[in-house]
Amino acid sequence: MYAVTVRDHFMIAHSFRGETFGPAQALHGATYVVDVEFRRPALDADGVVVDIGRAAEALKGVLSAFDFRNLDDEPAFAGENTTTEYLAGAVFERMAARIAAGDLGPGAAGLTAMKVTLHESHIAWASYDAALPASGG
Amino acid sequence: MYAVTVRDHFMIAHSFRGETFGPAQALHGATYVVDVEFRRPALDADGVVVDIGRAAEALKGVLSAFDFRNLDDEPAFAGENTTTEYLAGAVFERMAARIAAGDLGPGAAGLTAMKVTLHESHIAWASYDAALPASGG
Amino acid sequence: MYAVTVRDHFMIAHSFRGETFGPAQALHGATYVVDVEFRRPALDADGVVVDIGRAAEALKGVLSAFDFRNLDDEPAFAGENTTTEYLAGAVFERMAARIAAGDLGPGAAGLTAMKVTLHESHIAWASYDAALPASGG
Amino acid sequence: MYAVTVRDHFMIAHSFRGETFGPAQALHGATYVVDVEFRRPALDADGVVVDIGRAAEALKGVLSAFDFRNLDDEPAFAGENTTTEYLAGAVFERMAARIAAGDLGPGAAGLTAMKVTLHESHIAWASYDAALPASGG
Amino acid sequence: MYAVTVRDHFMIAHSFRGETFGPAQALHGATYVVDVEFRRPALDADGVVVDIGRAAEALKGVLSAFDFRNLDDEPAFAGENTTTEYLAGAVFERMAARIAAGDLGPGAAGLTAMKVTLHESHIAWASYDAALPASGG
Amino acid sequence: MYAVTVRDHFMIAHSFRGETFGPAQALHGATYVVDVEFRRPALDADGVVVDIGRAAEALKGVLSAFDFRNLDDEPAFAGENTTTEYLAGAVFERMAARIAAGDLGPGAAGLTAMKVTLHESHIAWASYDAALPASGG
Repeated sequence: MYAVTVRDHFMIAHSFRGETFGPAQALHGATYVVDVEFRRPALDADGVVVDIGRAAEALKGVLSAFDFRNLDDEPAFAGENTTTEYLAGAVFERMAARIAAGDLGPGAAGLTAMKVTLHESHIAWASYDAALPASGG
Repeated sequence: MYAVTVRDHFMIAHSFRGETFGPAQALHGATYVVDVEFRRPALDADGVVVDIGRAAEALKGVLSAFDFRNLDDEPAFAGENTTTEYLAGAVFERMAARIAAGDLGPGAAGLTAMKVTLHESHIAWASYDAALPASGG
Repeated sequence: MYAVTVRDHFMIAHSFRGETFGPAQALHGATYVVDVEFRRPALDADGVVVDIGRAAEALKGVLSAFDFRNLDDEPAFAGENTTTEYLAGAVFERMAARIAAGDLGPGAAGLTAMKVTLHESHIAWASYDAALPASGG
Repeated sequence: MYAVTVRDHFMIAHSFRGETFGPAQALHGATYVVDVEFRRPALDADGVVVDIGRAAEALKGVLSAFDFRNLDDEPAFAGENTTTEYLAGAVFERMAARIAAGDLGPGAAGLTAMKVTLHESHIAWASYDAALPASGG
Repeated sequence: MYAVTVRDHFMIAHSFRGETFGPAQALHGATYVVDVEFRRPALDADGVVVDIGRAAEALKGVLSAFDFRNLDDEPAFAGENTTTEYLAGAVFERMAARIAAGDLGPGAAGLTAMKVTLHESHIAWASYDAALPASGG
Repeated sequence: MYAVTVRDHFMIAHSFRGETFGPAQALHGATYVVDVEFRRPALDADGVVVDIGRAAEALKGVLSAFDFRNLDDEPAFAGENTTTEYLAGAVFERMAARIAAGDLGPGAAGLTAMKVTLHESHIAWASYDAALPASGG
C-alpha cells in the first residue's frame, strides 16, 4: 500500500458537555495540527498517490470552515462534543466529499483509504481511519 | 476506526545478554518516550475514544513501576532481554490489565485495539500493536 | 552559560482587537506548548541549574491560571491583545515571581536569566528572554 | 504485531515529467528522511524484531546508491518519476532484497512485513507498506 | 527581548566545489526547512513583534526565488558554495531588504535583530543571526 | 554570527547523590540526544562554519567514551552528579579539546563559540554555551 500525507493546522474555541471533561467544560480552545494520509494500492500514471498540490489546497479549504471559529456556534456541530477524535472524523468526511466531487483531480478516484490525525498538543493526538467509497464506474 | 494517543516517558538502566548486542551487553540505560494509542470503531456517548485524563493517569501508573529502576533487578523481567520491543509488549500487557480492571472507566470497555510505541532515540523506536480482549457481558 | 528547559502546555480561547489580525479578531483558540529555559553561569552544589521537579511544578501552577480559560474574560489581561509573544512575557513575569518567592527552592536564587517560548503551531512560535533580578542579600 | 523502526536520510537532485508537477518539472532536489519499520508477530530468541545494528547498516547501504546523486541520471530510474512515494517503494524493494540475501542476519527470516516512509519536508511525507515474501524452508 | 518565528521550506539542487565536500561535489539536492526569528525589545501597539501574516508572506516571496531551482545555475550565487550556512545568510539578507522596503508593514521598523535557520536533515542545521540596521528617522 | 549544528546520541546508566533528586537517587539511565552548535562570525574560504563530516566524526568519538556505560563507574566523573547540564558541560570540554587538537581541521581554528545541548526526554533538556579559546598564532 502506498500513502502520501500532507500537514496543515487550524485554531478554534469550543467547550465540552459532560462531567467527564472536568475543566474542559469551560470555553477554551486548541490548535489542531492536521495530517491527512491518502492511500492506494498502486501509483497512478504520473507515479503519485494524489496530486499533492490539489490535496493541500483541498485540505486548506476544508479547514477554513473551522479556522478562527468558536465551534460552539457552528450549526454543523450542534449537539456534538467537538473532541479531537470527533473532529478527526469530521475532517475525514469533508475531505472524502471533496475527493468524490473531483476537487483532487480525476486521479484521486484511485484512492482507497484515508486517515486524518489531529494533534492537540505535544502529548496527545487523535485520528480517524477508514476506507473511501469505491469511485468510478 | 477512531484512535486517541497519549505520550509519557520513563528512564531506566539495563543490560542485554547475547553477542548480537555488542557494547549494549554492558550496563547502560535509556529514556523511553512512550505513546499509547487506543482504538475503537465508534465513539462513545460523550464523543470520545477513552477518557484521556484517566488514560494518562493509568499510563503514569504503569510506567511508575519501571521509572528510575535498573530493570536487571526487576523480578518481573528475570531471564528476559528488556529490549525496546519487549518493553513495548510489557507496557501493552499492563495497560490492557488496567483497562480490564476498569481503571480507565466503564467507557473503555468499548476499546478494541491498542498500540504501544517506545522511542529510544531520535533514530530508533519500537512498538507492539494488538487487539484487546472483548470486554463486557 | 548553563541552561535547563522544561516543557508543558495550556489550551485557551481568545480574540484579538485590531484590523491587522484579520480573521483572528473572531473568538478562536490555541494550544500553547510552553518551554521555560532557566540559565545561570555555574552549577549549584548538587550539579544542577535548578531543581527540575520544582521548576516543572511551578510552571504547572503558573499555567493553571490560564488553562481551559477564555482569556477575553480574564481581568489580568483586560485591554491587552493576548498574542503569543504577549503571553510569553506574561508567563515569564509569573515564573520570575515564583522564583523570587522561593517556590523553586533556595538554589534558584542563582538563576540569572530565563527564556519562555510558546509554540502556537508547527509553523509559528514566540518567546520572551530577559535577565532575572539579582537575588539574595 | 511487534515493530522496530530505524531512521536515516539521503539528499538527491531530480526533476519530474508531467504538467501536474508544475514548477517541480524543473531540476530541483530534496532531503529525504527515511524511516524503515520492520514487523513480525513474535520476537526472536534474543527478544528482538531484528538486529538493529545490521538493519541500520543495510539501510545505509541501500541509501548510499541514491545519496548525493542526480536521480535523472540513474539508469535504475529511467522513464520513472522519482516521486517521494515511488522512492519509498524503491527503498522497500532494495531492503527486501537485502533481507532475502541474509544481510540482516538469519533472524530476519522471521520478518513478515515492512513499511518505508520518506519525509520530504515538515509538511509532507509518503510511504510504502507491504508484506515480505515468506522466507525459509 | 521578544521574538516571533515563522517556518516554511524550499527544495533545491546544487553541488559544491572543494575536496572538503567529498561526495557532495556531485550534483545533488536538499529540502531546507526555514525558520525566521524576528526580535525586538518591546511589543508594538497591537501587542505583536511583527505582523505574522505579512512576515510569512514575505518569507514565501523570498524562498520562491530559490524553490524548485538548481542553484548552480543562479547568477546570484555564481562562484559561491551554496552551503546551508551560506544560504541562511542569503535568506537573512533578502528578508532584511524586505523589511527595509516596508513589505512587513510600518511596525516592522521596530525590529532590531533576526535569525534565519535552515534545517537540512534531522541531524544537521545552520543559521545566521545578526542585528538589523536601525530603521526610521 | 553563523552557526552549524550536528546531532547524535548516547545511552548511559547513572545515579544521583542528594535528597533533591528523589527517586533519581536509584540507579537508572537515560538516552541523551546531543546537539553541538559551532559558531563563528564569518564563513571560511569554502563557505562553511566547520567541516561537518569531521565535526560529526569528532562528536561520535567524544560520545563513544560515554555510550553504553554506567557513569557511576567512570573515574572521570568520580564525585560528580552526572546531571544533564553537567554532561552538557563535559561534552563541551571534550569537543573543545578536539578542536584545539586540530581534529576538526585547520578551518576550525576560526570557531569562536560552541553550545552543547542534551535532550533527556520530550519535555526536558539542558545546555552549556561558551566562547572557545582563541586559536592560532
